[in-house]
Amino acid sequence: MADATKFVYLFKEGNRDMKELLGGKGANLAEMTRQGIPVPSGFTITTEVCNKYYQTGNTFPQGLEEQVRNAVKDLEAGTGMSFGNPKNPLLLSVRSGARVSMPGMMDTVLKLGINEEVVRGLIEKTGDERFAWDSYRRFIQMYGDVVLGLKPQSKDEEDPFEIIMDRMKKERDIQLDTQLTAGDLEELSSKFKDLVRENLGLSFPEDPWEQLWGAVGAVFRSWMNDRAKTYRRINDIPSDWGTAVNVQAMVFGNMGEDCATGVAFTRDPATGENIFFGEYLTNAQGEDVVAGVRTPYQITLEGSRRWAASNRIDEEERYRVFPSLEERMPRQYQELVSVYRKLEQHYADMQDIEFTIQNGKLWLLQTRNGKRTAAAAIKIAVDMVDEGLIDKRKAVSRIKPEQLDQLLHPTFDPHVTRETIARGLPASPGAASGKIVFNAEDAEERSNAGEKVILSRIETSPEDIGGMKSAQGILTSRGGMTSHAAVVARGMGKCCVSGCGALKIDYERRTIKVGELVLLEGDWISLDGSTGEVMLGKIPTIPPEIGGDFAMLLSWADEIRRLGVRTNADTPIDSVRAREFGAEGIGLCRTEHMFFEGDRITAMREMILAKDIEGRQKALSKLLPMQREDFIGIFQAMEGYPVTIRLLDPPLHEFLPHDADSQSQMSRELGISIDEVRSRTDALREFNPMLGHRGCRLGITFPEITRMQAEAIFEAAVHLVKEGRDVRPEIMVPLVGTVRELELQKDIIDETAGEVMERSAIHVDYLVGTMIEVPRAALTADEIAQVAQFFSFGTNDLTQMTFGYSRDDSGSFLPEYIQKGILPGDPFKMLDQTGVGQLLEIGTRKGRSVDPKLKVGICGEHGGDPSSIEFCNRTGLDYVSCSPFRVPVARLAAAHAVLNENKV
Amino acid sequence: MADATKFVYLFKEGNRDMKELLGGKGANLAEMTRQGIPVPSGFTITTEVCNKYYQTGNTFPQGLEEQVRNAVKDLEAGTGMSFGNPKNPLLLSVRSGARVSMPGMMDTVLKLGINEEVVRGLIEKTGDERFAWDSYRRFIQMYGDVVLGLKPQSKDEEDPFEIIMDRMKKERDIQLDTQLTAGDLEELSSKFKDLVRENLGLSFPEDPWEQLWGAVGAVFRSWMNDRAKTYRRINDIPSDWGTAVNVQAMVFGNMGEDCATGVAFTRDPATGENIFFGEYLTNAQGEDVVAGVRTPYQITLEGSRRWAASNRIDEEERYRVFPSLEERMPRQYQELVSVYRKLEQHYADMQDIEFTIQNGKLWLLQTRNGKRTAAAAIKIAVDMVDEGLIDKRKAVSRIKPEQLDQLLHPTFDPHVTRETIARGLPASPGAASGKIVFNAEDAEERSNAGEKVILSRIETSPEDIGGMKSAQGILTSRGGMTSHAAVVARGMGKCCVSGCGALKIDYERRTIKVGELVLLEGDWISLDGSTGEVMLGKIPTIPPEIGGDFAMLLSWADEIRRLGVRTNADTPIDSVRAREFGAEGIGLCRTEHMFFEGDRITAMREMILAKDIEGRQKALSKLLPMQREDFIGIFQAMEGYPVTIRLLDPPLHEFLPHDADSQSQMSRELGISIDEVRSRTDALREFNPMLGHRGCRLGITFPEITRMQAEAIFEAAVHLVKEGRDVRPEIMVPLVGTVRELELQKDIIDETAGEVMERSAIHVDYLVGTMIEVPRAALTADEIAQVAQFFSFGTNDLTQMTFGYSRDDSGSFLPEYIQKGILPGDPFKMLDQTGVGQLLEIGTRKGRSVDPKLKVGICGEHGGDPSSIEFCNRTGLDYVSCSPFRVPVARLAAAHAVLNENKV
Repeated sequence: MADATKFVYLFKEGNRDMKELLGGKGANLAEMTRQGIPVPSGFTITTEVCNKYYQTGNTFPQGLEEQVRNAVKDLEAGTGMSFGNPKNPLLLSVRSGARVSMPGMMDTVLKLGINEEVVRGLIEKTGDERFAWDSYRRFIQMYGDVVLGLKPQSKDEEDPFEIIMDRMKKERDIQLDTQLTAGDLEELSSKFKDLVRENLGLSFPEDPWEQLWGAVGAVFRSWMNDRAKTYRRINDIPSDWGTAVNVQAMVFGNMGEDCATGVAFTRDPATGENIFFGEYLTNAQGEDVVAGVRTPYQITLEGSRRWAASNRIDEEERYRVFPSLEERMPRQYQELVSVYRKLEQHYADMQDIEFTIQNGKLWLLQTRNGKRTAAAAIKIAVDMVDEGLIDKRKAVSRIKPEQLDQLLHPTFDPHVTRETIARGLPASPGAASGKIVFNAEDAEERSNAGEKVILSRIETSPEDIGGMKSAQGILTSRGGMTSHAAVVARGMGKCCVSGCGALKIDYERRTIKVGELVLLEGDWISLDGSTGEVMLGKIPTIPPEIGGDFAMLLSWADEIRRLGVRTNADTPIDSVRAREFGAEGIGLCRTEHMFFEGDRITAMREMILAKDIEGRQKALSKLLPMQREDFIGIFQAMEGYPVTIRLLDPPLHEFLPHDADSQSQMSRELGISIDEVRSRTDALREFNPMLGHRGCRLGITFPEITRMQAEAIFEAAVHLVKEGRDVRPEIMVPLVGTVRELELQKDIIDETAGEVMERSAIHVDYLVGTMIEVPRAALTADEIAQVAQFFSFGTNDLTQMTFGYSRDDSGSFLPEYIQKGILPGDPFKMLDQTGVGQLLEIGTRKGRSVDPKLKVGICGEHGGDPSSIEFCNRTGLDYVSCSPFRVPVARLAAAHAVLNENKV
Repeated sequence: MADATKFVYLFKEGNRDMKELLGGKGANLAEMTRQGIPVPSGFTITTEVCNKYYQTGNTFPQGLEEQVRNAVKDLEAGTGMSFGNPKNPLLLSVRSGARVSMPGMMDTVLKLGINEEVVRGLIEKTGDERFAWDSYRRFIQMYGDVVLGLKPQSKDEEDPFEIIMDRMKKERDIQLDTQLTAGDLEELSSKFKDLVRENLGLSFPEDPWEQLWGAVGAVFRSWMNDRAKTYRRINDIPSDWGTAVNVQAMVFGNMGEDCATGVAFTRDPATGENIFFGEYLTNAQGEDVVAGVRTPYQITLEGSRRWAASNRIDEEERYRVFPSLEERMPRQYQELVSVYRKLEQHYADMQDIEFTIQNGKLWLLQTRNGKRTAAAAIKIAVDMVDEGLIDKRKAVSRIKPEQLDQLLHPTFDPHVTRETIARGLPASPGAASGKIVFNAEDAEERSNAGEKVILSRIETSPEDIGGMKSAQGILTSRGGMTSHAAVVARGMGKCCVSGCGALKIDYERRTIKVGELVLLEGDWISLDGSTGEVMLGKIPTIPPEIGGDFAMLLSWADEIRRLGVRTNADTPIDSVRAREFGAEGIGLCRTEHMFFEGDRITAMREMILAKDIEGRQKALSKLLPMQREDFIGIFQAMEGYPVTIRLLDPPLHEFLPHDADSQSQMSRELGISIDEVRSRTDALREFNPMLGHRGCRLGITFPEITRMQAEAIFEAAVHLVKEGRDVRPEIMVPLVGTVRELELQKDIIDETAGEVMERSAIHVDYLVGTMIEVPRAALTADEIAQVAQFFSFGTNDLTQMTFGYSRDDSGSFLPEYIQKGILPGDPFKMLDQTGVGQLLEIGTRKGRSVDPKLKVGICGEHGGDPSSIEFCNRTGLDYVSCSPFRVPVARLAAAHAVLNENKV
């Protein structure tokens, strides 16, 4: 326990393990100080003071004042400057800092300790009048906003200080703040103070101590502002953690030509290359580097030369106009290099550092783990293992599973300029270029003719599956991240931009209107599924690959993880791809997609429209050989691994055409009157198809469908076993809600299996299990496990039914729910652990109470989501299953789940 | 424990408490024997023998044979007849008898012990050749069927014995079995035996002992036939209960004019009147009385005279042709009277008895509690309490709650002949006559003009509500017991026949076709909602009432029950009616129905089509005063009781017209272009509206709707409190799935309540709670109970989501599910205790873990279902809520729940 009466820690008194007491930033500044890094002196007021402040009705605890005074004295001693002394003024920054970073949620006050007298002292000391008055007017503005509350009260209001400044710029007829003179800034400071007086009826505080206490209180109060509260609720941060306050001596990079400021990475954040990489400006403030007002220079000589080369600037010109820090301030550069090496060694990670050189003296203002691209993250992690800096487990833990997504889809060549015309939802990652087509048939036709197409629809439906498969990418003007287009595209690993409302798609005229622009059928467009951008023309792409460092890192993840990783795949091609990505079998092979291809749909429709069991049998016997071929291909691709095949699931009307043209075509093809086609289609129409006649309900009312599918599966298996291959079918009955349903379906499957095996005198090992996707199935899992040989949680449907949300319709309220914090995120992407998770837990527990070795997996889209995978690991599932392109993500996430569990 | 080696009990050795061992029938015959009632001697082979029989591969245990031989000897001694002795043959009946009655599921053999020799002895003894041969051919036929398995193997096959008999009748050119002569019957017996020989290759057994063992084995085997197994599965009867076998001396009522047979009730089963009531025939078999081949006579003189009077037969004629048993056999009649009194006293319930008089000697063959109408049941129960025969608790337990339904709707005058043209589903009980109309507007218009109408639709939708209210009854050709029409009609307590597929309803021609018959708009038809009958013409009805004995019995039920009983009511009229029926408040007042009336729908549509919040506010302000008036009326009707008001629930598109005509009318009324009407209607269309933008999701995205409804509620409440009335609003937020939804809605309600109360300076006590109807709400009830002040389980939606069944679409598979035994019954009528029940239990437990006094109710349709009410009682709910006409049923069922729980 910390000393309960010690409220203030000098940086030199703390370390990085004291985050609870000093907050993240405070602990880090202390750590750097301990490492002998040149950090401006400072101290931290603890998070406990924040709690006391709230417990006692916004008052400071007794003893705090004295400890702060002593700490400031220590700062004065260390810096040789004096707080409030115009001759040699010490200015301070006052910042929040909670246990975990809450970026931008709380308040900061900079340059505290300044007043008119100090301004004049500063002018004397630096000779820079403009610098001094600008510092002052900035301080008044910031303090006025943060401490005194003079800020816009709604989105429509303007900032009161900006109004005054805008008025002055108009009077002077100038555009930029930098055009204001020292005199202007002095006048502005005075007007700002008038504003405070008029609004609050009190003078702006000139006393530095009054300023300091005002700022400390304001930072504490910002812990309870609405933004911070919402952020904490969403991120599950307890409000009694409190925030610390960091008070630190200000340093300035803009006090002359022997001053500079910069930002650097200890390795290249784009590629991971082990080179020092950064930018700086002389006589500038830190924000100038970031803001891009002036173009910053490269820090290293090599960097500078590379930059010059790519900008076709010769060496003489480069040295004259864009010299490196290495050349310009060699002593400080060398010091910086030794500091960065020290920091990287110390933190054992690539660092993002901020520094300032004030009058020739280097100061480090911040170090933190640097953000990086996925490729860089992997290279850095693998390199650091080679360098002996970290171990494999640490390397694996360093890569965020979600990041891998960037590496798993073709990407646009970054060197080509994009002409973006609209932006929709980034529904399924990838990069695609193609000619605009407006319906599935055209997509298939043109694609067969060798053209690349983008299927552009208001929204898609299951009838479009063929066209979606043929297209390079899918673009819709309606529907969210969970719309049919989005879900199917992700399943196919196909690029999709959905819900792009700016597009007016006109099927009749065959045009897409975007504002004034009109695109015609056949025009080239490109889609970026990672950003949601829709662009004009054809943009070249770079293909994804898993090799080298990437493959190495994933193999380390495989050593750590306990969960198996399977894939959701419906075709041999997908199966092969998933296997390349590391899938250990198929967790969900949907059989319905197989019925949409070629003339299969005709046989399928014949089956649906049949009047009696004989008619259905006849049509089914046409489908049987096709299904058998499908299964042979998939079993071959997944040889040696289990293949979970789900029996027919969707409502039958999804296979029937609903427009008059297609209906009359079908009537001709099948030799059935159009009236009968219509009346049968109408009879199959449902109010809520999601909750209708589908899943095993079909297999119960039409057992012959189950029999045909089982026959196809076992004939395929027998065929391959005969060739000496290792085939492991796991047959999955969908939408089971009562054990009796599964029992009836299993009877048919077992009987059919027996017949096929007897006929061929060949034995095949297989399992029969069920999807747990109806809440009742999870609740009665102990009954169902008496029949099921495995469970697979179908969390898409389970989420729909547990929440009562139709995925297809949730677009009308779900975004608002997330925005209002009712839900932490889209429950169709991230498993709702609180609610739906209970059913997974109940289902697994009850299932295993009957059969302790029951194999339990998950095959909803959540199977590829890292937080959901962590939950599955915790709940004791055996495997997750996800789309092929998510397999590497899942492998890594499953390893993380194990690493995180050891952490707790 | 019974003696493990005693397999056979003589009737005189058993009693009525031995049902487990002797079966129900055996125990009852034993009990009568003990009471000194003249019962033909017999014995029972125990249920344990049945179990042993199965355990040992269908063999009889050692020792059984000897015990049976001894028992038969006892019979011979008692009857003075001898088994297999042609001179004085003892014939036997062999019947099954399980612990509980399984009517018609198992097998029986009668007249066992007969063979050709015995036939000749019988002829000698009785002089009745025809009787003897007829007995023999009947025995061969029955034994052939039951023991030898010579019966039709499928529905299409004919009975092989009947084929032979039909052939003979054709040869003789006669119609009736009774026209066959003794010679014919002898020949038939011989042909029947030939059939056995040809089919089975063995002679028909002539040895009475062989016959007896054959019959005993057959009865045991019938315990495992498919019918019996299915029956047990559905009724949850363990298969190891087994059946007993009852062997009893046959007596004959057809051995001459001093023989008779009859059936009687100890009180009138139709009215409950305390008179002896029954029918008999002389020289006849028991089945002749029931089969109606001959018209039976009245047993009592008074009954005979009443019967003669109503058939306009004079006394002389009556005495000559239809004399009573009282006159004809006064001695046996007096004996019968004393027996029936003894039995009724002994069983303390109205008895249904069967008797036979053989050669002047009275034998009782059966006594059991008699079936009776609901009215009779109540009168008998109340009378028996007055007579001191039973106590109030027993009286209450005697009435099946479901029976009350008969008494709670107008019924057709039973004296009028019905001309039934079709039969649909008995969707909502009641009797209604009216003129055919085909749409809701016509229904309202004609009804306003004072006409009575039957709204006849293919199916109904929420737009038809107004018309449904105006109509006398609703008839649909599509949709099941849970279709919109059925559910809404039951809610309204309105007669409805649904899914009457034989009707072809043609909106365009305005006709209903039934086969060749064509009905036109305006034709009178009548509906019987209790039988599903559709009848031609207008049939007069009798209104329901609760008074006298009925009211008395319900008041006794109220003393016993622990559950409160509320009603689901949306109007003051329904509220008044429910209160008369004993409702203690409203558990569910749906507010959406209020928006369909008159010009409210226009304002509602204006609200829905509004482009922004201002437009919605404007429309809502038109709705506010109307809602306020609704609530004033309902609060007044339910003064002193809580009124639970559910905020707007259905998806908005339900309020919009979907056909072109209505859309263009709406476009004119609202001054909005038809394109906009269409595009807005399309935008609101959902794939699965059940899981779409409805319930509190509306209140979250359009908080102004919640605010308007809260304002209307509190203004109404304040208005009445000002008048000194006792008003108790309980505001219910629908479809909550996360606590935050409820929190946001409660904030609005509380804020609005505060404003209204402050404005009027009047305080109103109120509660805010939620429906638990989404599985996630039940699973996270501990979170939700931190905000909710009450829970009400909406088991309709909860059942839909827990099973994943859309009520509107389940007709395509649910009937088959019930028929195949996958579900024990319609889960929308009878709560699924195994699955959905778990969520009720979890929700209640988690809710009370936070607030031990949390008020918990149920307001789905299950609130009126007796088995579901028993579950609610067991789960500790505070109240159930059901439609007004179910309130008396629920009061009684809630009392039964308490009585049953004491039983266990």
